[in-house]
Amino acid sequence: MITAGIVGATGYTGVELLRLLALHPQVQITQVTSRAEAGTPVSTTFPNLRKYVDLKFSEPNDEALAECDVVFFATPNGTAMKSAPQLLARGTKVIDLSADFRIKDAKVWSHWYKMEHACPQLLAEAVYGLPEINREMIKGCNLLANPGCYPTAVQLGFIPLIKAGLVDTRRLIADVKSGVSGAGRKAELGILLAEASESFKAYSINGHRHLPEIVQGLNAVSANPVGLTFMPHLTPMIRGIQASLYATLTDTSVDLQKLFENFYRNEPFVDVLPAGMSPETRSVRGSNHCQLAVCRPQDGDTVVVLAVEDNLVKGAAGQAVQNMNLMFGFEETAGLNVIAALP
Amino acid sequence: MITAGIVGATGYTGVELLRLLALHPQVQITQVTSRAEAGTPVSTTFPNLRKYVDLKFSEPNDEALAECDVVFFATPNGTAMKSAPQLLARGTKVIDLSADFRIKDAKVWSHWYKMEHACPQLLAEAVYGLPEINREMIKGCNLLANPGCYPTAVQLGFIPLIKAGLVDTRRLIADVKSGVSGAGRKAELGILLAEASESFKAYSINGHRHLPEIVQGLNAVSANPVGLTFMPHLTPMIRGIQASLYATLTDTSVDLQKLFENFYRNEPFVDVLPAGMSPETRSVRGSNHCQLAVCRPQDGDTVVVLAVEDNLVKGAAGQAVQNMNLMFGFEETAGLNVIAALP
Amino acid sequence: MITAGIVGATGYTGVELLRLLALHPQVQITQVTSRAEAGTPVSTTFPNLRKYVDLKFSEPNDEALAECDVVFFATPNGTAMKSAPQLLARGTKVIDLSADFRIKDAKVWSHWYKMEHACPQLLAEAVYGLPEINREMIKGCNLLANPGCYPTAVQLGFIPLIKAGLVDTRRLIADVKSGVSGAGRKAELGILLAEASESFKAYSINGHRHLPEIVQGLNAVSANPVGLTFMPHLTPMIRGIQASLYATLTDTSVDLQKLFENFYRNEPFVDVLPAGMSPETRSVRGSNHCQLAVCRPQDGDTVVVLAVEDNLVKGAAGQAVQNMNLMFGFEETAGLNVIAALP
Amino acid sequence: MITAGIVGATGYTGVELLRLLALHPQVQITQVTSRAEAGTPVSTTFPNLRKYVDLKFSEPNDEALAECDVVFFATPNGTAMKSAPQLLARGTKVIDLSADFRIKDAKVWSHWYKMEHACPQLLAEAVYGLPEINREMIKGCNLLANPGCYPTAVQLGFIPLIKAGLVDTRRLIADVKSGVSGAGRKAELGILLAEASESFKAYSINGHRHLPEIVQGLNAVSANPVGLTFMPHLTPMIRGIQASLYATLTDTSVDLQKLFENFYRNEPFVDVLPAGMSPETRSVRGSNHCQLAVCRPQDGDTVVVLAVEDNLVKGAAGQAVQNMNLMFGFEETAGLNVIAALP
Repeated sequence: MITAGIVGATGYTGVELLRLLALHPQVQITQVTSRAEAGTPVSTTFPNLRKYVDLKFSEPNDEALAECDVVFFATPNGTAMKSAPQLLARGTKVIDLSADFRIKDAKVWSHWYKMEHACPQLLAEAVYGLPEINREMIKGCNLLANPGCYPTAVQLGFIPLIKAGLVDTRRLIADVKSGVSGAGRKAELGILLAEASESFKAYSINGHRHLPEIVQGLNAVSANPVGLTFMPHLTPMIRGIQASLYATLTDTSVDLQKLFENFYRNEPFVDVLPAGMSPETRSVRGSNHCQLAVCRPQDGDTVVVLAVEDNLVKGAAGQAVQNMNLMFGFEETAGLNVIAALP
Repeated sequence: MITAGIVGATGYTGVELLRLLALHPQVQITQVTSRAEAGTPVSTTFPNLRKYVDLKFSEPNDEALAECDVVFFATPNGTAMKSAPQLLARGTKVIDLSADFRIKDAKVWSHWYKMEHACPQLLAEAVYGLPEINREMIKGCNLLANPGCYPTAVQLGFIPLIKAGLVDTRRLIADVKSGVSGAGRKAELGILLAEASESFKAYSINGHRHLPEIVQGLNAVSANPVGLTFMPHLTPMIRGIQASLYATLTDTSVDLQKLFENFYRNEPFVDVLPAGMSPETRSVRGSNHCQLAVCRPQDGDTVVVLAVEDNLVKGAAGQAVQNMNLMFGFEETAGLNVIAALP
Repeated sequence: MITAGIVGATGYTGVELLRLLALHPQVQITQVTSRAEAGTPVSTTFPNLRKYVDLKFSEPNDEALAECDVVFFATPNGTAMKSAPQLLARGTKVIDLSADFRIKDAKVWSHWYKMEHACPQLLAEAVYGLPEINREMIKGCNLLANPGCYPTAVQLGFIPLIKAGLVDTRRLIADVKSGVSGAGRKAELGILLAEASESFKAYSINGHRHLPEIVQGLNAVSANPVGLTFMPHLTPMIRGIQASLYATLTDTSVDLQKLFENFYRNEPFVDVLPAGMSPETRSVRGSNHCQLAVCRPQDGDTVVVLAVEDNLVKGAAGQAVQNMNLMFGFEETAGLNVIAALP
Repeated sequence: MITAGIVGATGYTGVELLRLLALHPQVQITQVTSRAEAGTPVSTTFPNLRKYVDLKFSEPNDEALAECDVVFFATPNGTAMKSAPQLLARGTKVIDLSADFRIKDAKVWSHWYKMEHACPQLLAEAVYGLPEINREMIKGCNLLANPGCYPTAVQLGFIPLIKAGLVDTRRLIADVKSGVSGAGRKAELGILLAEASESFKAYSINGHRHLPEIVQGLNAVSANPVGLTFMPHLTPMIRGIQASLYATLTDTSVDLQKLFENFYRNEPFVDVLPAGMSPETRSVRGSNHCQLAVCRPQDGDTVVVLAVEDNLVKGAAGQAVQNMNLMFGFEETAGLNVIAALP
């Protein structure tokens, strides 16, 4: 049994961590912090947790947090990097669900996130938590950079093709769609039900912050430099990401179905659908699974990979728990045995 | 470990039973029947079950089903009553999620369900599975009539008031709203997304089949005859029932909040919210909880009870599992430790 | 051709006025004010108006507004009452879509709206703009209090029964449901798509500001004092209000269908459905119509009236245009010939 | 004033034609046919039309229909081609909203639509009704093939680039998303609210019938053969199509914004947004407008065109009315002055 703290638990990744950790057999949540809601019972803000979480929000305090075995940061960008050094120094493991430790190059990070990095010296040590690619490094790490929601789906979809050297990496296209919870629990006009429901649009059309993260991840497995057009869209639903990924094949003789099935054969949370099926976001809603399909329309030289995940689970809190399991030597699926409710 | 069969598993209550039972520590699902889909893997129809359910749909067959310790009927009305006698005779317990055994009076049943009852002799033996009211009888029964979705919410809301003799039972009003999954997994125009989304309406305005079931249940705990106006509405969402219940108080001096809290103090799945809070359906989505609130607007003599549940869980499959737990002596909450995912 | 100004046009009632007035044959919109967006083209904020409205938002200025023939206030409560006296003095007609002039008793208004009234002397002069009840008074007025969204539906539903003296007015019940746009175009957590979608709840359970407005309106046509339980609910859709109204009949011999049909026979925007049909909000979405049905379940002594309207049209901007038409002697339906798009 | 008949008016394109034509100043609807609903008032099936359409559905009958000046076919594929020859022979103009006359090559048509063509001799005479491309031919025609919903958006987006010879036409990618009404008013499981809401997926991943129609249209304006990957997706909303179109630029020196603005400068229903804006489907909901944007992410050699339309209006009934206006010499925008209701 380990003790866990959650910093910034009033956001969507925070409440999702609470949902998963509250039933985790080896974790006791001991601190749930929120500056704005300090003193309030967690279950007043999140009535779904009544009968399961009996804590109050507390003021975030690094001294107190350092008593936890692990601290999750479900905070806006720029917060975790201020507390991580002290926590690590005290022997507490840190899992950051924000973007603070995802980009290895502090300059690139500053360019996209519009602030100076507070502890660039830790960037080399931080491990990027995509278990399907970095499992062994994750097991030994103390500072975990949990991947972004889009980057998880896009990398899981493209990597088998890129590693196999089968596609022209100069012009990859990722047309991705996200439910509105991806924008976070923030009072903003554009994500009101009355604004975002019954409508569909592309956004951040001139550059989204997840672009450098994806490119870094793809370049890490690619023999040739990666050029990516990444176009995010807002779709009128709460949860879910669907990615349609397009690339030009340099070799059309390979059995793509087999390639993907072999690549993910032993993965507990990545599932390649039978040929001809198309993954739906609802099939993984609330669960930590990513479902993939691969096809080659009209038998041409364009390959299409379709990937779905729950942006708040495999794209955030669920993957964070999966990483925690690896970091502490628990069974990788502990606390993640959740089946999507359908319908 | 017991073995369970599910008849009619291609509907929404069926897939919900599969979701819950697949992770139940004391149950092994051994048969999943569907005439239409016999031979197809269950997970082809319901991809959310991939990696969790590895069975194929089979033809329903009473001989085979009798090998199960318990058989759930998630079938249209009129099916369970044909198989129940044989299964019971063979020692298999039967849990019927349809309406076949809910109404004690076969004539009343025939009037509302437009068919003859196939085994009226079993109606007296069947136990109505509302654990909060009938827990002890459920424990010993072999034939369980699982309550309807609306009746569960309306009875849980009204019963504390009626048992306490606090309201004029002649003119109760139940204004209830259901998500569209309540209509079942049927190809019908009216429940298409394009028809039922972004709209709201009352339906069955001249009489809904759940009316006699509710009245029977309320009369069972009432000193005076119950007169009920029951008005169901379709609300544009998938899951959830909200009931707003109105009654005239005969005594306005009672502390209603305390009355409700005391009534449900030891219930694992009924939760009375603090005064002033209003329950939301999403707080119990996918979970077996019913959340209640009670208030007296403008301190008048009208009492309002607000109740929410997931129509497919506490209103169907979850309550069926809760009943199964009682019938087999398992912990009442086994397999039902699911927290609603919020948002 | 008259000139019209819209104050506070960045809200939902404002943009709805723009949609309707832009195509009104006798109105030219000359001023569209917004403090926050002054200088921005209206069609940048509302791209649906591209090719139809070629104005910029301007700073609100009473001097300039007084050049209009009519000024609409689509502002938060408390704004119109500050400008109305000066505009009226300059001969400009005022149509207030906020609540400033709806309640005749300034003390009652202050109690519910938590501020002092700035011009109580105008309250007697203001005409409550429910054309079906006050048509003649509206024709001659200069200061028009446009009814609230809920009050429009609830009054249109109850008034035929109350005027006919057919119901016990002491315990009326209005169970009403609104789409989320009723909360306005405000950045608030509770009305985010991720919070309000796929959920249903009652709100303002201890008293909603529309209660005194409805009671005032019903008392005005009632021989006996009105007691009302008014319970508003949030339903996961953008537009639409549905009201289910319950009352105890004092006389069950009257043909209610005929009563309603006769009452609204000549109304262009109130439509009584044939017996047995239940109105759906989508049938009037975007249009100025209110559809009604009346029934008596199980032939008992409880009457149920069902009413639907678009909260932003008949419940706000459309009714304001209807009132404007009456005030300026235009055809009552001018600019309101819009058919709901179905689906 | 002309007379118009609508065949198959119980579907979504049918009711949309009724909505638009009911208010068209130069059209009288005289026949509305439906085999299934013959004898029923149109407004019983579509209560949004109460007070606007006072006709009953009648049995389809070519003799009777030939008395109309124009007949719209809002029918499943394979129906219009059986009646068109007789109607044309009788001097009635035919506007087919199905696919029967869209593909010039009868063999290609049969391959995709799985039936023999009933009147291949008319294929050459039929004019493809994309007014922005074929306006002059439309004016003189008697048999109009109204474009599909996806083909309208994809062609309007790609054609300026292809006509200018600016892109590599061998590998165009169209990632398109449609609201559920695109599937028609059919009782099918997959488009139930409970199935299609709160989910997102690609479908017809191995080939959609609109592919040959789009390729035919693009080839008609291209110097080089077109290769297209066309991937349709279902998005959880009623109306709207959004297309994200990707192509590799062969010349990156051209001002794409100007190119598009010039191309559509005089079009009443195509609107190029200012640089940096992304079109939303809701801005054109219920209206006949198509809004476009063009961008070049990270200033690379991939161009992205974003297009939105209402699939039932510019993608079906609205475009049909626009074509009718051209065919009869009416003002092109007559009956189409509808502003999208926002929100």
